[in-house]
Amino acid sequence: MPKVKSLPRGVAMVGAGMSKFGAFAEKNSRDLFVESYKAMTKSVDKGFDPAIIEAMYVGNFSSDQFEHQAHLAPILADAVGLTPIPATRVEDACASGGVALRQGVMAIASGMADVVLVGGAEKMTALNTAAVTEALATAADVAYEIPAGFTFPGFYAAMASAYMARYGMKSEHLMNVAIKNHDNAALNPNAQFGMTIQTWMEGRVAAALKKGKPAPTWSTIWEFLHDESGNPTIAYPLRLFDCSPISDGAAAVLLVAEEIAHQFTDHPIRIIGTAQASGSALHDRPSLTSIPAAKTAAANAYEMAGVTAKDIRIAEVHDCFTIAEVIASEDLGFFAPGEGFKAAEDGMTARDGAKPINTSGGLKAKGHPVGASGVAQTVEVWKQMRGQAEARQVDGDVSLALTHNVGATGSTCTVHVFERRN
Amino acid sequence: MPKVKSLPRGVAMVGAGMSKFGAFAEKNSRDLFVESYKAMTKSVDKGFDPAIIEAMYVGNFSSDQFEHQAHLAPILADAVGLTPIPATRVEDACASGGVALRQGVMAIASGMADVVLVGGAEKMTALNTAAVTEALATAADVAYEIPAGFTFPGFYAAMASAYMARYGMKSEHLMNVAIKNHDNAALNPNAQFGMTIQTWMEGRVAAALKKGKPAPTWSTIWEFLHDESGNPTIAYPLRLFDCSPISDGAAAVLLVAEEIAHQFTDHPIRIIGTAQASGSALHDRPSLTSIPAAKTAAANAYEMAGVTAKDIRIAEVHDCFTIAEVIASEDLGFFAPGEGFKAAEDGMTARDGAKPINTSGGLKAKGHPVGASGVAQTVEVWKQMRGQAEARQVDGDVSLALTHNVGATGSTCTVHVFERRN
Repeated sequence: MPKVKSLPRGVAMVGAGMSKFGAFAEKNSRDLFVESYKAMTKSVDKGFDPAIIEAMYVGNFSSDQFEHQAHLAPILADAVGLTPIPATRVEDACASGGVALRQGVMAIASGMADVVLVGGAEKMTALNTAAVTEALATAADVAYEIPAGFTFPGFYAAMASAYMARYGMKSEHLMNVAIKNHDNAALNPNAQFGMTIQTWMEGRVAAALKKGKPAPTWSTIWEFLHDESGNPTIAYPLRLFDCSPISDGAAAVLLVAEEIAHQFTDHPIRIIGTAQASGSALHDRPSLTSIPAAKTAAANAYEMAGVTAKDIRIAEVHDCFTIAEVIASEDLGFFAPGEGFKAAEDGMTARDGAKPINTSGGLKAKGHPVGASGVAQTVEVWKQMRGQAEARQVDGDVSLALTHNVGATGSTCTVHVFERRN
Repeated sequence: MPKVKSLPRGVAMVGAGMSKFGAFAEKNSRDLFVESYKAMTKSVDKGFDPAIIEAMYVGNFSSDQFEHQAHLAPILADAVGLTPIPATRVEDACASGGVALRQGVMAIASGMADVVLVGGAEKMTALNTAAVTEALATAADVAYEIPAGFTFPGFYAAMASAYMARYGMKSEHLMNVAIKNHDNAALNPNAQFGMTIQTWMEGRVAAALKKGKPAPTWSTIWEFLHDESGNPTIAYPLRLFDCSPISDGAAAVLLVAEEIAHQFTDHPIRIIGTAQASGSALHDRPSLTSIPAAKTAAANAYEMAGVTAKDIRIAEVHDCFTIAEVIASEDLGFFAPGEGFKAAEDGMTARDGAKPINTSGGLKAKGHPVGASGVAQTVEVWKQMRGQAEARQVDGDVSLALTHNVGATGSTCTVHVFERRN
């Protein structure tokens, strides 16, 4: 078991930005990263000279497969003028962004750097959906998981089915997560699906009428979400709106040693907990209704930060599928096992709830360019903690926040805890 | 420019092992890594309990493309029983192993871990040569380098041509590097090509005779190496024996905080210098006869270690092609620009020379499973510095050694300096 150790040196985030997420035929991961880097530089209150950046970590799942471009880190460094700094790609499937953040923290904590750029980027839409699904499946275990015939919707569907059987959840309950995350994304100008499900449904009706086709008869989003033509089943019990999209996007944050943070901003965000854990493949776990790596990472991050789950004001969690958000909200200790879906139903995870989750829209609606997601979660935390989340800003004091980033079926999980001191 | 900083905490290597390198139809990267892990555990003089390992870094270029298996780190961790420790893959093309080593050093220097496993693995031979060449080409820049029509033999052939034009080297001079590295590999039981070029040539003659074909008339290896049927041109001026092979293999080293090294061995090897640099694509460099990232990394590693090039007793350098070794021997400061090929000709880089290079056989003859190579270099340093390199052991005291690991055409380079204290 990994020992929990405190950071020997404080680390602070002093800038954060992201590209718009979506499907961009004309942009590659390099273009998207440059966009996110520019947004990051603008967010640094007192400005800075890029020449002081000493190292760069990039989270990327598989530009190898998506763009036929491996070795992405030095290419992105060159694109933003940072050659010859050390530029390292890290990969732990969809947790690559969280792992990149952790490496950045470690580089500063080690004393080997004072200023580190952490980025994440993925360009997925150049391939068709079947090819993307196949590329993503390489994140699972090809010896144990893939031969069972699964791709990722199937894995998470199996978890959802197990959760339903164990805790009495209905598949309808998952829709609460999708509705909430679309509501949040509608207020996030960088989101891929910047609209509520109501708006989406109305768009479908309008499109049908425009084509002279009979208009669908959905009168509520619940009818829409229950209808196979509105919300088709992907892998029972998961339907289309239970799944995060295929996305292009990038994100970037600037980390510095805490003692120099005031040179960049009077309102830095400290990273006070960082943890990562690995997990076995799905067949070798005691239960499908919880992810052991997430529980281990959460426990270690809380201990390092000296906080508990109840202290966390907001969290960005890895909702690659709606069931993943429900399970995450339990693994992180926000709700008891079997209570996560009820919390979502009761509005506890909404922006005005007791424990807002995925105010950004989450992977589900903000989009999920896989290697960028863990870094983009950090961008949302940065904005919420500094009161810059505009229309989706949560009320009151956000002095403690958390990000939770999962790779594959949970064979990697990172958890980070952030603190704002006034 | 990255600042050079000393490590705030000493880091020592207390174990190192590798799999046999070669083409193994029946083994995947998981099998090979387990083999290297077992060899590493056996090398730890006083033994250890694997439960104390707190984190793991894996260098891997693209199991995504070679094995349809991404997210390799937690899978390898699970294979050797280390779940749930943080398990992170790092990728910087053929420098992935060196970068993994550096992350391991950083994890200990940061105080976040005391005991870290560093591994490297690549299984390349499941694809045919054309497919491997295409997969490797994704390590180059798809926007600038690949559209010029190059794959890697072509890139390094361009460097060789430029070097010949600038310094008067003949293509024959490169053969000295190949002959030396095969001589060394003949004494390395883990090498893919564990034979001298003389033995290789005799094997070709014997095979022809066995098939009843006319025997080739080569009477010396020089005739063999100059003959298109013995040593065909791949990309002028590079011939077959100028190129490293397509390989399967893995390597593993165990790093610990220096203050606990005595618990593992009375003869640890300290890592006193670590540096990494990035470089632009080939089109954007002032010269083709030197790799700027290598010079930057070398300067920074020497400064951190407090040593100079002349202090280094042996070096494992990145000889993906023979020309790469010549250029490396100059970029590292062992020889003046334009003098590296003469040093090889004069035997200065042989085992009994003033500056032995690639006593392991190098990538050229030991084999080049790309993500493993940087870690396997470290295994050779471990053996030579502890007097355990058997028939290829260099004479005298090896108190300072160096590894040099390059990604792509030089868009990444790592340099590490190792010290043995008696």
